[in-house]
Amino acid sequence: MKITMAQLNYHVGNFEGNYEKMVDAIQRAVAQKSQLIVFSELAVTAYPPRDFLEFDDFIEKSDDILERLKSHSQDIAILVGAPTRNPVIEGKDLYNSAVLLADGQIKSLHHKALLPTYDVFDEYRYFEPAHSFAVAELHGMKIAVTVCEDIWNVGNENPMYTICPMDVLMEQRPDIAINLSASPFHWEAALIRKGVVRANVERYGIPMIYVNHVGAQTELIFDGGSLVMGTAGNVYRELPYFVESIETIDTDDLMDSDRDEPITMEKNQLIHDAVILGLRDYFQKLGFSKAILGLSGGIDSALTAYFAAQALGPDHVKVLMMPSPFSSGHSVSDSEKLVANLGIRSELISITSLYEEYLQVLDPYFSGYDHDVTEENLQARIRGMLLMAFSNKEGYILLNTTNKSEMAVGYGTLYGDLCGGMSVIGDIYKTEVFDLCRWINRDSEIIPDHIITKPPSAELKPDQKDSDSLPAYDILDRVLIEYIENRRSPQDIIDMGLDAQLVQRVMRMVNINEFKRYQTAPVLRVSRKAFGMGRRMPIVAKYLS
Amino acid sequence: MKITMAQLNYHVGNFEGNYEKMVDAIQRAVAQKSQLIVFSELAVTAYPPRDFLEFDDFIEKSDDILERLKSHSQDIAILVGAPTRNPVIEGKDLYNSAVLLADGQIKSLHHKALLPTYDVFDEYRYFEPAHSFAVAELHGMKIAVTVCEDIWNVGNENPMYTICPMDVLMEQRPDIAINLSASPFHWEAALIRKGVVRANVERYGIPMIYVNHVGAQTELIFDGGSLVMGTAGNVYRELPYFVESIETIDTDDLMDSDRDEPITMEKNQLIHDAVILGLRDYFQKLGFSKAILGLSGGIDSALTAYFAAQALGPDHVKVLMMPSPFSSGHSVSDSEKLVANLGIRSELISITSLYEEYLQVLDPYFSGYDHDVTEENLQARIRGMLLMAFSNKEGYILLNTTNKSEMAVGYGTLYGDLCGGMSVIGDIYKTEVFDLCRWINRDSEIIPDHIITKPPSAELKPDQKDSDSLPAYDILDRVLIEYIENRRSPQDIIDMGLDAQLVQRVMRMVNINEFKRYQTAPVLRVSRKAFGMGRRMPIVAKYLS
Repeated sequence: MKITMAQLNYHVGNFEGNYEKMVDAIQRAVAQKSQLIVFSELAVTAYPPRDFLEFDDFIEKSDDILERLKSHSQDIAILVGAPTRNPVIEGKDLYNSAVLLADGQIKSLHHKALLPTYDVFDEYRYFEPAHSFAVAELHGMKIAVTVCEDIWNVGNENPMYTICPMDVLMEQRPDIAINLSASPFHWEAALIRKGVVRANVERYGIPMIYVNHVGAQTELIFDGGSLVMGTAGNVYRELPYFVESIETIDTDDLMDSDRDEPITMEKNQLIHDAVILGLRDYFQKLGFSKAILGLSGGIDSALTAYFAAQALGPDHVKVLMMPSPFSSGHSVSDSEKLVANLGIRSELISITSLYEEYLQVLDPYFSGYDHDVTEENLQARIRGMLLMAFSNKEGYILLNTTNKSEMAVGYGTLYGDLCGGMSVIGDIYKTEVFDLCRWINRDSEIIPDHIITKPPSAELKPDQKDSDSLPAYDILDRVLIEYIENRRSPQDIIDMGLDAQLVQRVMRMVNINEFKRYQTAPVLRVSRKAFGMGRRMPIVAKYLS
Repeated sequence: MKITMAQLNYHVGNFEGNYEKMVDAIQRAVAQKSQLIVFSELAVTAYPPRDFLEFDDFIEKSDDILERLKSHSQDIAILVGAPTRNPVIEGKDLYNSAVLLADGQIKSLHHKALLPTYDVFDEYRYFEPAHSFAVAELHGMKIAVTVCEDIWNVGNENPMYTICPMDVLMEQRPDIAINLSASPFHWEAALIRKGVVRANVERYGIPMIYVNHVGAQTELIFDGGSLVMGTAGNVYRELPYFVESIETIDTDDLMDSDRDEPITMEKNQLIHDAVILGLRDYFQKLGFSKAILGLSGGIDSALTAYFAAQALGPDHVKVLMMPSPFSSGHSVSDSEKLVANLGIRSELISITSLYEEYLQVLDPYFSGYDHDVTEENLQARIRGMLLMAFSNKEGYILLNTTNKSEMAVGYGTLYGDLCGGMSVIGDIYKTEVFDLCRWINRDSEIIPDHIITKPPSAELKPDQKDSDSLPAYDILDRVLIEYIENRRSPQDIIDMGLDAQLVQRVMRMVNINEFKRYQTAPVLRVSRKAFGMGRRMPIVAKYLS
């Protein structure tokens, strides 16, 4: 049987747009004499629709698209992800389903049983788990159809669910397995995902076709990388990452092939391409085309500007250089060099007169006090206000330039440098920011070398350095990764050879700054554990704080 | 048997503090010759601990407290809510349990089966549902022990779960039911809750003791109102709302009593008391004592100042009056009257010189453009910056004064009047704000009458009125309630007799402003559907936008 994998970039709630993409793919598949086209999980609504799933009108719109897709299933069968209604009163009202359309009818429904409800996933919020399982039948072939997480309980040391749907489906002796996914990117995901498909192929002894979503929805980036795995665990075909792709394979060729052509990409390349897709989709899906950001002369804003130029085109990026009395000379000269290298637009605006006006207005109230973080924050907030003024006046989205290490310890000013509609590098630790910049410069100097090599500084008071108030970034990042990603206890981290006081101080900083992260823009997710919807913490908690 | 209900105010992650409260309550119960003391759901950790439940160290700390509580169970049995570990590898690692301690030992564990995963609840994120059920036995009595949601699937038209745990427990012929809850407040919750307990008592024919959490954790307010219901559906005893309370009842008296003394409170009183508890706990649990806010002369900031004065004491509240060239004369005079009535502290700071300095700094870039929302936002943001400067310098938490109607349609300036560490009235619609102020003034004029009666205005340009850009608030709020609370479609709302264009415009405003709400402080929840953790929307969606 000829089967087409459609790895497409859907848009949440954009039913007409998603439908048109699917119809176009169907026509291309029919032209290739394909007999079945497979779309990804919840393709009709795009993933994740979140609480729109609770609106009956939203489900009706999705049902309409399924209805209209039926008429396209005369020459080719269609397997598509969509929410479907649970006909039983007891239980949640919806299933997360793979719908098989053929001969103008719904031929079978295959509901998801394992509903990821952890990290960025909320599926039990909306869906009833499948209570029964049946293979699909098409042109004499039996197909074990599953949805995403259904294949992820296989081969784990500490499985999160009490069943494996494929165990049940195998009793019906399927010839092949097809999985519809919407599996979001983090830089280790592609490798893990291939391991999961392999664990299934090895356990069940049948090939698997795995079709993933590509494209970004707010903070979540879907990286594609759909694949076909042969019974030997060989990667028979792997679709490209971060782009739409439609490919037809023939199961007759697949069954005995040992072709093994996996795509491998290194960490910096993966994060680089993911961020660019994430940024581009955020702007396109919101109907914006232009970004603005503040360029401090430091490495974080330099990397953010680079990403913006790559995602939107240099003509669509404006930067403001906003020196204060505490800015170094090189903060502007380094920035100007970067602006020239990237070909982006820039303006130079001194914040000195505004800063002095604030000091004067506040002097009657603050005259008895020392200069402290208040005055530092004033500078950061004046910059935020100027950027927002340009954003309002000329229609830019302001980009937040904070890195993950700063986000973690609260090294940033709320309503100041934490302003912005999207946090571009908020899931990239400072040490990773350095790595990425060096990687971007691997062939030629795009990000001026001095930006990478000079000691990081917020330049909010005379001769300030990050190292005055933070541990060295290599140590800080080690503690943060163990605590945030690996959820280790203070004692565990101390036992790794790190200073006890430092570990406790860092954890306290992470926890008491939850209120800042609560009010920060969505963060493009590139790691296993990003700030935002995947990490839900109480603000008032008294624990390691 | 004498049973003590302990309705206490716990603090997430404050294990020692929670333990001390419990020990104190145990000693008081023992003095009353009580044989069993009942604490609420997850009392050991406080509810909701959110992702701290994923930290093994956090669970160890909780286990330690259970261990230490054992020694207090010699003279009295203890039924307490805590996370416990799932000994089976398959499935989630924790249960949400009621733990019965007696004679210095764990006597039985009762796991929660129905895990609320909707609105503000995320329990399937952390917990495995109970797979089996057994009654507790104590002094010859059989007790059906359940945890919160376990009793909520009874008597619903569209039940969310496929089982009712009490159905199974009744096979073991319990004499009485005890439910440990952490059921958060909204102004209709107490009535609904009593209805749920009554539906259980009527279905199962045994009395029920219902022990609820009291106190606030960030945005969630727990209102208490623990109760004992007799088999006739009579409220044998109801504990007070919004305060800690410890009460001992004798089941011998309860069994045949028809005493029915329910507490009833009206909507305004409930919201009023809830907000004050929510604010007070937010400050106390974060270790802050002082609030600051901007007083515009309008009703929203007036109500917020009133709540702050009630929660923290007038001496701990400072307001800034910050007139601009567009401010009316009464904006300051009305504010001054309110300041005098409340006895709070105030400062008057003109923003004119700062506003003019921004216009001058930006003039080279904006000279070709008309005045627009940019200049309006500048004023709101200057005010936000001045408030944050005081907050930084003198240690206030800034209170956000935006109401729910404004939050819904995005009528507010990000990083301007949307600044603040807590949104006090962000779950109270504008029409409800008017009601509340009139109710507060029922005996004497606390909020100056002119603040309530004058037409609402942001005063960001000459002669501006809210009604220039928004529908009348009674119509706007009707549309918002139908859309946000009742999740109705545009057509449904139009069919109620509302203007089609208006309905579509309002829905679009709600949806395109999701990005603003994403960056707004936690909102004290007083309705069925508050903005924040209970309403999770994609930012980039193209649906009703």
